[in-house]
Amino acid sequence: MSEFNQPLGGNEMPRFGGPATMMRLPTQADAAGLDAAFIGVPLDIGTSNRPGARLGPRQIRDESRMLRPYNMATRAAPFDSLQVADIGDVPVNTFNLPKNLEIIDAFYREVLSHGTTPLTMGGDHTFTLPILRAIARQHGPVGLIHIDAHADVNDHMFGESIAHGTPIRRAQEEGLLDSQRVVQIGLRGTGYAADDFDWCRRQGFRVVTAEQCWHKSLEPLMAEVREQMGDGPVYISFDIDGLDPSVAPGTGTVEMAGLTAAQGLEIVRGAWGLNVVGGDLMEVAPPYDPSGNTALMGATLLYEMLCVLPGVMRRD
Amino acid sequence: MSEFNQPLGGNEMPRFGGPATMMRLPTQADAAGLDAAFIGVPLDIGTSNRPGARLGPRQIRDESRMLRPYNMATRAAPFDSLQVADIGDVPVNTFNLPKNLEIIDAFYREVLSHGTTPLTMGGDHTFTLPILRAIARQHGPVGLIHIDAHADVNDHMFGESIAHGTPIRRAQEEGLLDSQRVVQIGLRGTGYAADDFDWCRRQGFRVVTAEQCWHKSLEPLMAEVREQMGDGPVYISFDIDGLDPSVAPGTGTVEMAGLTAAQGLEIVRGAWGLNVVGGDLMEVAPPYDPSGNTALMGATLLYEMLCVLPGVMRRD
Amino acid sequence: MSEFNQPLGGNEMPRFGGPATMMRLPTQADAAGLDAAFIGVPLDIGTSNRPGARLGPRQIRDESRMLRPYNMATRAAPFDSLQVADIGDVPVNTFNLPKNLEIIDAFYREVLSHGTTPLTMGGDHTFTLPILRAIARQHGPVGLIHIDAHADVNDHMFGESIAHGTPIRRAQEEGLLDSQRVVQIGLRGTGYAADDFDWCRRQGFRVVTAEQCWHKSLEPLMAEVREQMGDGPVYISFDIDGLDPSVAPGTGTVEMAGLTAAQGLEIVRGAWGLNVVGGDLMEVAPPYDPSGNTALMGATLLYEMLCVLPGVMRRD
Amino acid sequence: MSEFNQPLGGNEMPRFGGPATMMRLPTQADAAGLDAAFIGVPLDIGTSNRPGARLGPRQIRDESRMLRPYNMATRAAPFDSLQVADIGDVPVNTFNLPKNLEIIDAFYREVLSHGTTPLTMGGDHTFTLPILRAIARQHGPVGLIHIDAHADVNDHMFGESIAHGTPIRRAQEEGLLDSQRVVQIGLRGTGYAADDFDWCRRQGFRVVTAEQCWHKSLEPLMAEVREQMGDGPVYISFDIDGLDPSVAPGTGTVEMAGLTAAQGLEIVRGAWGLNVVGGDLMEVAPPYDPSGNTALMGATLLYEMLCVLPGVMRRD
Amino acid sequence: MSEFNQPLGGNEMPRFGGPATMMRLPTQADAAGLDAAFIGVPLDIGTSNRPGARLGPRQIRDESRMLRPYNMATRAAPFDSLQVADIGDVPVNTFNLPKNLEIIDAFYREVLSHGTTPLTMGGDHTFTLPILRAIARQHGPVGLIHIDAHADVNDHMFGESIAHGTPIRRAQEEGLLDSQRVVQIGLRGTGYAADDFDWCRRQGFRVVTAEQCWHKSLEPLMAEVREQMGDGPVYISFDIDGLDPSVAPGTGTVEMAGLTAAQGLEIVRGAWGLNVVGGDLMEVAPPYDPSGNTALMGATLLYEMLCVLPGVMRRD
Amino acid sequence: MSEFNQPLGGNEMPRFGGPATMMRLPTQADAAGLDAAFIGVPLDIGTSNRPGARLGPRQIRDESRMLRPYNMATRAAPFDSLQVADIGDVPVNTFNLPKNLEIIDAFYREVLSHGTTPLTMGGDHTFTLPILRAIARQHGPVGLIHIDAHADVNDHMFGESIAHGTPIRRAQEEGLLDSQRVVQIGLRGTGYAADDFDWCRRQGFRVVTAEQCWHKSLEPLMAEVREQMGDGPVYISFDIDGLDPSVAPGTGTVEMAGLTAAQGLEIVRGAWGLNVVGGDLMEVAPPYDPSGNTALMGATLLYEMLCVLPGVMRRD
Repeated sequence: MSEFNQPLGGNEMPRFGGPATMMRLPTQADAAGLDAAFIGVPLDIGTSNRPGARLGPRQIRDESRMLRPYNMATRAAPFDSLQVADIGDVPVNTFNLPKNLEIIDAFYREVLSHGTTPLTMGGDHTFTLPILRAIARQHGPVGLIHIDAHADVNDHMFGESIAHGTPIRRAQEEGLLDSQRVVQIGLRGTGYAADDFDWCRRQGFRVVTAEQCWHKSLEPLMAEVREQMGDGPVYISFDIDGLDPSVAPGTGTVEMAGLTAAQGLEIVRGAWGLNVVGGDLMEVAPPYDPSGNTALMGATLLYEMLCVLPGVMRRD
Repeated sequence: MSEFNQPLGGNEMPRFGGPATMMRLPTQADAAGLDAAFIGVPLDIGTSNRPGARLGPRQIRDESRMLRPYNMATRAAPFDSLQVADIGDVPVNTFNLPKNLEIIDAFYREVLSHGTTPLTMGGDHTFTLPILRAIARQHGPVGLIHIDAHADVNDHMFGESIAHGTPIRRAQEEGLLDSQRVVQIGLRGTGYAADDFDWCRRQGFRVVTAEQCWHKSLEPLMAEVREQMGDGPVYISFDIDGLDPSVAPGTGTVEMAGLTAAQGLEIVRGAWGLNVVGGDLMEVAPPYDPSGNTALMGATLLYEMLCVLPGVMRRD
Repeated sequence: MSEFNQPLGGNEMPRFGGPATMMRLPTQADAAGLDAAFIGVPLDIGTSNRPGARLGPRQIRDESRMLRPYNMATRAAPFDSLQVADIGDVPVNTFNLPKNLEIIDAFYREVLSHGTTPLTMGGDHTFTLPILRAIARQHGPVGLIHIDAHADVNDHMFGESIAHGTPIRRAQEEGLLDSQRVVQIGLRGTGYAADDFDWCRRQGFRVVTAEQCWHKSLEPLMAEVREQMGDGPVYISFDIDGLDPSVAPGTGTVEMAGLTAAQGLEIVRGAWGLNVVGGDLMEVAPPYDPSGNTALMGATLLYEMLCVLPGVMRRD
Repeated sequence: MSEFNQPLGGNEMPRFGGPATMMRLPTQADAAGLDAAFIGVPLDIGTSNRPGARLGPRQIRDESRMLRPYNMATRAAPFDSLQVADIGDVPVNTFNLPKNLEIIDAFYREVLSHGTTPLTMGGDHTFTLPILRAIARQHGPVGLIHIDAHADVNDHMFGESIAHGTPIRRAQEEGLLDSQRVVQIGLRGTGYAADDFDWCRRQGFRVVTAEQCWHKSLEPLMAEVREQMGDGPVYISFDIDGLDPSVAPGTGTVEMAGLTAAQGLEIVRGAWGLNVVGGDLMEVAPPYDPSGNTALMGATLLYEMLCVLPGVMRRD
Repeated sequence: MSEFNQPLGGNEMPRFGGPATMMRLPTQADAAGLDAAFIGVPLDIGTSNRPGARLGPRQIRDESRMLRPYNMATRAAPFDSLQVADIGDVPVNTFNLPKNLEIIDAFYREVLSHGTTPLTMGGDHTFTLPILRAIARQHGPVGLIHIDAHADVNDHMFGESIAHGTPIRRAQEEGLLDSQRVVQIGLRGTGYAADDFDWCRRQGFRVVTAEQCWHKSLEPLMAEVREQMGDGPVYISFDIDGLDPSVAPGTGTVEMAGLTAAQGLEIVRGAWGLNVVGGDLMEVAPPYDPSGNTALMGATLLYEMLCVLPGVMRRD
Repeated sequence: MSEFNQPLGGNEMPRFGGPATMMRLPTQADAAGLDAAFIGVPLDIGTSNRPGARLGPRQIRDESRMLRPYNMATRAAPFDSLQVADIGDVPVNTFNLPKNLEIIDAFYREVLSHGTTPLTMGGDHTFTLPILRAIARQHGPVGLIHIDAHADVNDHMFGESIAHGTPIRRAQEEGLLDSQRVVQIGLRGTGYAADDFDWCRRQGFRVVTAEQCWHKSLEPLMAEVREQMGDGPVYISFDIDGLDPSVAPGTGTVEMAGLTAAQGLEIVRGAWGLNVVGGDLMEVAPPYDPSGNTALMGATLLYEMLCVLPGVMRRD
């Protein structure tokens, strides 16, 4: 028997039974003793179109029951060497958007105080900002691998500075990002002006539009990204709408012609070897995909993030 | 040709075409010259469980295409004597709940300044509060016919005073209601304490639980309600979750064993003869009813509210 | 082994397997030798709002797999004494509405020439007209038990005389109906003028609105209907939208606050003893009810029609 | 702070967050110290039509997040006096139906050994049999309040004696039931012969068909049932298909024209005062109701069962 | 403030509010003064399999709310230099297919008389024929970029010459097309004979099957198409079923293994520089994609057509 | 008129009508006289996650109505030279998994005794085992083209040797496979250990993971596979979950980032010229794809299997 927590196996309890935690892992009240923790941020009041991402953590956990411990493609065996648990949801405030910045920041500070790497299931993308605040306080400005249809660098939305279209701008303004080590992948669609993406370029971010990704493997891109990221701390923020809506219909601000599922996996797997200090998977909105497949895609990407954390071994 | 706006007829444009306005009525920029106006409040950031009511006005308008001008049951012909239009949506702030109280209040003050009766399609129930503020400023404290699964008299939710579980309490505290002329119909389900309903009774409200409505016509009840309401101004606030989920599955905070569709119609039709000064239909959440039938129920109830406004004639 | 066709039993083939015929009955190419035949009219180009009823016969047959041979409530055992089969669909013309009047009429004349009672699964209500033409040619003007939200007595729709809102008017004009022996049950909703229903009354039809049915058993009504129908031939035309949308969401022209499922069964069972010469179940539109329950309701009502055909015995 | 477990409150964690346990109650590994336990039996390989009930426990728990601790209608406050938890799922065998009889029986024997009353969320109705075996071993033959569309007294299905259409017959044959204290409510639909229900009557069971329930309150019936049950131990087995498909579309073997939601609540509430020793809510099949309302109905009924357990106080 | 109509911005009205017009543009009664007009043809009585495209214009408009004015990929800014509005739906005849040929032709003649370029949202593909008639009368025979799974060159369907499988054949026979300047992209699936596509080749059309498009960018193809089209007038007719069903499930006559979303965008963007005189996007059938993503794909393609109209500037 | 059975044509009966058989082919009671037969195995009690594949054959048949006789891409005309029918479903036992091994084996032995090639629509993958037993008895060990997300070589599941994760292991152990002529395409996802795939390699199977297929045509692979298969008998077993969930969401054990629809077609078409002795298409689970597109993909793949059977001619 392993000394580390293991996902509940399909031969101990059928996959459709057992606890509805991430990968059917054990839960615990806080992050003490954990190398990595799955955390839910069930909130979507920062979303500008279709709501529903508040239900994302529940559906991601539910669908994650299909995930077994070992990565057949990369041979990563995260539960051989890391202590991992699902520590539940941040007790967010449903009615007051700004208050959540402090609630979430405090929650993650506490998690990070245990030396635990947070892997977050959202929730809308607004809430990457307080996570990055906590992360940067711990690690200093971080490199960022940001997969998304949108750059999320609006100055404001409807006059508000905090919303799901602004977190990357706020993070950059607050010095949370190491701007030469930021890459945004999958950007596309319509906007108000070229500056919607050019602002990023002016900060020194690398912008990789969806068009630049079409019809090919992203492995070469990720080799370059690894070069760009170097040895510094890296955070992965994956907005599920970076993927094509055929792959991930269950989200709120849909843009056509995004990344394939394969490309999504190539990106996360391509972070192997980097100093990944945290990751999130945001914007899964269950009401628009009753099949649950968007959530399972989200769960899979979170699992792949776990598989590239420092300290994970790959079995021969 | 009538001097009054008419819904676009099915023989002029098929029902699945034409403008997606309420009943395919004309639109206009403000309420000038209108006896009654349909108004959307597309916002749901006050909701405590499943979001989606922000999409309610769009789906109610879409499905309202089935509604023809004449009421076969009551013989009311609202477009014979009232000038009615759909004046669109209040430009709400998606990210900041409190700011909407002022935005909405101001919008309705403007509407009321034209002597127009507002009929609102929500949106979550939070936003009945600013409407009532505007109404009470115009008409003084009003009688209230409130159909709902919930009393909506929480003192706070998650520490916030403004949310979709508090509007009736706030309205009562602010003196917007004539508390002897308040009836709440359809209350049911689970709570934290008896006071969740008893608070209402202590204010002098009449509480009619769903259990008191089961298996029978509400016509006798409505005779009593008309007695209770007298000649004073009356506002009708209809939370679609007052109805049974079999009738109205598309809503966010579902409670079992509510009112039938017939009872819903009996209540609104039972307001005939009262001095109705406004009405709303809240909490239609389209993502949970792709069939559109919840929205059509909502549209039908709004139409029935129109049919009981003072000044509507019934053709022999 | 019975001399009569039997539905394929659940112990011979699981209910989710076997042929997708009505009740998993045998098929045959024509009506020869049959006492009763199930027939599909897969067409919906007469519908004025949401299409989809063309797919009705396929879904009704699919869901009818739940139906076993014996009626637990009425003790009717139709397959003890009648030879019944599913003779498939009328080869309708998808693109030309008027041509179908002749196609369908001819098909039913052929069926009736074998002395077979047709039980039709629609398809939109337009196509009751050619069936009634064939029926009336065989039996003379018939009594009609018509369950519907709409009277279907428009003079025209968008300038056309043949559409799903006109068949009863055309039938009456053509002398297909014995107008003192017509009852319309479940009428409701909105219209253009009182005459939408009053025209019926002027013909001598009995109009029973949905409001007259609310909150009570329809057994007393059906006693009166049996009186009204007497010994003459009776046709049952059941538009599924006569039922409440909570019971039958999968239809195209939805009206709120209709009949309950129980009332639907009471009506058809109440025709026991009458000289029923045919029946139809129209307007099941599968795209709006993926659960299949509307179709199963339709299949159940068709089965109940079979159970009240002359010659069906009730086992003690 | 209460000495008893409390459901996680909506002001501590939003209803769409927190653990996906029944009512967001704490979990524990076994039943030690519990007065009542919620238990999942996630299995549906005994079903004869549409599968999916294996996913029932997960969806019931998910949707149960709406349930608050206090019963507004009956004033029952179960968490004031009972220690209750969700003890998770029985580790069923997905592939071998008969083996589960022993697995489940053993699990429940263990639960009962703690003096704990089990409240089960199914799963298909097959698995009421092993529960009844464990119950009867503890309590002797029990009275049974059985709500269902089907009598579940088939002798065999497809040659097998164990399936979801046979548990009541097996229970009766095995002497698990006190046959004068059995009532079956909601039976209806089609069958193979009158004996499908008459067998029950011959055992001394009271059969209350759906037809006998239509259009009226079941409070008078329940007064008679309380009389029938007397002081002996009573088990409540509620197959969700006893309810009308409009109320509970998410189930596998659908029959039209069943009980209303109100009647469902009246039945369970009507068991107040009886010596209830266990209960189950079976056959919720999530794939057929993505809205989740069937599951919430199931959760509500389980909560109402909790509210009528001996020892529950009603607050004034 | 621009002198040209602008889509209503997300900071003036949340995207889920405001008018349900194409891109939330202003409406006007006719095309006077417009450079380009969005027009709905809400009709599907020419479809041969699943109906529903009549609801396409409503859902395309609804989902188009996500579209902002500026094209991030091509830097096109159509609203900088063109006057554009949504002029509503053609008042089609629901019941009589042939009559619509004249109704639609007349409507488009009127539009074209203002020098306005029509961009049509369908509706089934039958109705490209009358549009092409009006277009050819104005511009002479046109080049055609036709994206579709089907060649639409049947001689007849069920004996009828007008249906959604025949418009390209009729157009060619009537001399509406410049047959050396016709390309059909995405053809695939099953047929009755090789001639289903070879007829096209014999006319001089270029046929590019889906198989020829698999696994690669279509930019090289479009370079050839631009060569083929030269300077003459070009019409773009995009049947959404040209795309793979994973991208566009909401359509009526589904064929597997079609174009990706990226390829769809490449085709339309590849028309930049051509003399585009009109375009349509047909066969979006909302009932089969409640997520709305098919409609949003349709709206996006229509927007991309707008972006390649002559006179549109690309901002540096 | 052909001497061979032909699918019912769209000009004889609209595609939404006619018998719900595979491709609307005739049915017959057994395989006598048939070159190839479509057979349903409506059972899913071997599935380990979401059930529903028991409904697969019904939905595949329903959606197959879109398929016409001629293959536009390969010019194959299977109905020119083969006698084909749909011989219905195997009368499986719903409740007892092991018994079905014999039931199915016997059924296929009977089919094979007529020299008929079976093409099976599942049903879960468990049931490929008894088919392979029957096939191997007739043809000796076969080459296998196995498309799947999973290797299906578990030794046991929950202690049982027969389940949908074990058939290939059992087949190999029983000597049903010619292990040098086995290829598994599309494997991916998570597992318990590398051996989940390495066991296959040790048997001599060729394993082609999904990752090896991403972003490219599989035509080169299939050239190698044809080499590998040589002249010996070949069976094609296609688990629909080998495809990406965007293409085939309607299945039970979903894994992300699988094959595209185009790749699926390339694989089956790539079997042209081989000695194909049978094929199956398993694991279509309708409840998770109400659009029907997964089933249509399944039907298309089965049609393509028919098109590569020995004896099928390709028309010039």
